[in-house]
Amino acid sequence: MTLATSSAASPTAAPAPSDAAPASVAAPPFGRLLPQDEFEERIRQIGAERYHSLHPFHKLLHGGKCNHGQVQAWVLNRYCYQSHIPLKDAALLSRMEDLELRREWRKRIEDHDGREGNEGGIERWLVLAEGVGLDRAYVVSGAGMLPATRFAVEAYVRFVREKSLLEAIASSLTELFAPKIHKERIAGLLEHYDFANERTIAYFKRRLDEAPKDVKFGLGYVLREARTREQQEQVLAAVRFKTDVLWAQLDALYHAYVAPGHIPPGAFVPEGMVPVTELDL
Amino acid sequence: MTLATSSAASPTAAPAPSDAAPASVAAPPFGRLLPQDEFEERIRQIGAERYHSLHPFHKLLHGGKCNHGQVQAWVLNRYCYQSHIPLKDAALLSRMEDLELRREWRKRIEDHDGREGNEGGIERWLVLAEGVGLDRAYVVSGAGMLPATRFAVEAYVRFVREKSLLEAIASSLTELFAPKIHKERIAGLLEHYDFANERTIAYFKRRLDEAPKDVKFGLGYVLREARTREQQEQVLAAVRFKTDVLWAQLDALYHAYVAPGHIPPGAFVPEGMVPVTELDL
Repeated sequence: MTLATSSAASPTAAPAPSDAAPASVAAPPFGRLLPQDEFEERIRQIGAERYHSLHPFHKLLHGGKCNHGQVQAWVLNRYCYQSHIPLKDAALLSRMEDLELRREWRKRIEDHDGREGNEGGIERWLVLAEGVGLDRAYVVSGAGMLPATRFAVEAYVRFVREKSLLEAIASSLTELFAPKIHKERIAGLLEHYDFANERTIAYFKRRLDEAPKDVKFGLGYVLREARTREQQEQVLAAVRFKTDVLWAQLDALYHAYVAPGHIPPGAFVPEGMVPVTELDL
Repeated sequence: MTLATSSAASPTAAPAPSDAAPASVAAPPFGRLLPQDEFEERIRQIGAERYHSLHPFHKLLHGGKCNHGQVQAWVLNRYCYQSHIPLKDAALLSRMEDLELRREWRKRIEDHDGREGNEGGIERWLVLAEGVGLDRAYVVSGAGMLPATRFAVEAYVRFVREKSLLEAIASSLTELFAPKIHKERIAGLLEHYDFANERTIAYFKRRLDEAPKDVKFGLGYVLREARTREQQEQVLAAVRFKTDVLWAQLDALYHAYVAPGHIPPGAFVPEGMVPVTELDL
């Protein structure tokens, strides 16, 4: 192993703030206010480069390459995310002083928690969980969840609770990129997996209707309310942060259940696998 | 892919609360107060089963099996943890109404941030970072850090800020298990890596002196102040939570830089590697 200092082209040189700075890094120097179309284009560019539709786990899942245990692990861990969405939206709601804004945003909580005549997204996710052979109470308990899933989801809820309202709303804009992945998923699951049917994949079908309405509102809000370049950069950082939240969950899933298949202590162990501490490494 | 419901022996059945429940799960039913020696033994048992000394990444690192980029990635990401320790301890300090307790705990902040005649643990870590060829400003900026590292570290700081003082102090008890790993690491680094010398590994040598004093106090506090079985269970959950925080950081590191080598968008890319989005998968 050599001690050579890395060359200037290497990542040891500080990267350009606009495409690499995570939320916790010092604010970049700000320039001119971006026109709305260019600002929106930059938001969309983040999706093209970092949205979890690009993640190797999704390629396996949608291509029918996941085994039963991997699908179970995905459903189990993603439940953690799904079940925290209303908490995130309630935190947002609790910070909105504008009645119209609250009325608009409240729908999201109802979409997930349910209302008269709509069992809600969380219930639909539990139907999927049962459809892949998981015990409902086990899923709801949170036992077996990968700690990394929990840390990422909690980071999201806290981001929404603690950042500005503009950044909090901006972090929901990954929904811009969701309809495409939901369509791919619906087609991929129905084609490749026995468990997939109208009932078990109802969650994704429903989101095809809900997400575009939600995101139209969120995008309009952000384009309108980001009135300085600094605020526009905060919006972009919030969208990047959210792509990190989604990506990190799949990284943890892939690591534990696909390759190298190192299941951390205490996490769900599918049939035929063992925790990493029992592997002969 | 079959739809068979998993058998009773599988992990789809809810596991026993005492050894699997993560911090976020409903409290288990409580039994009798454990005698102090049995309580301490259960704390130590968590270390034996879940401390990150057991993690495959540490086996590679201490056995001289890491390449230069992997060592850099470890040092870079672990800086995130190191640099947040004083924030965690300050959050604890801000909640201690007892002057004697604050006096005792304050030393930890000084150990990391430094004082007259002691550059502090964070500075020693930066010396290590420079020793492995990383740019100091890049490390400090936090750019390139794995998002999963940040989420885990922030989860730790927030745990200490939000849980009871007893649980917050208990979460430091992983230091009980640290001296052994530090000894292994010092020996392993000096034996296998060119960058390792008295100066670059000063951080670990110093912790060999500091950690045992710190943990003696923390353990004494917890054994004394956990006065009900419920509190004892909270302590055990806090120690498990902390082992998850440490383990998740190494999982993310292993996934990105060892196997399968999937570096997430925006993270540090060592020479000779590319981000996962540029891999031909």
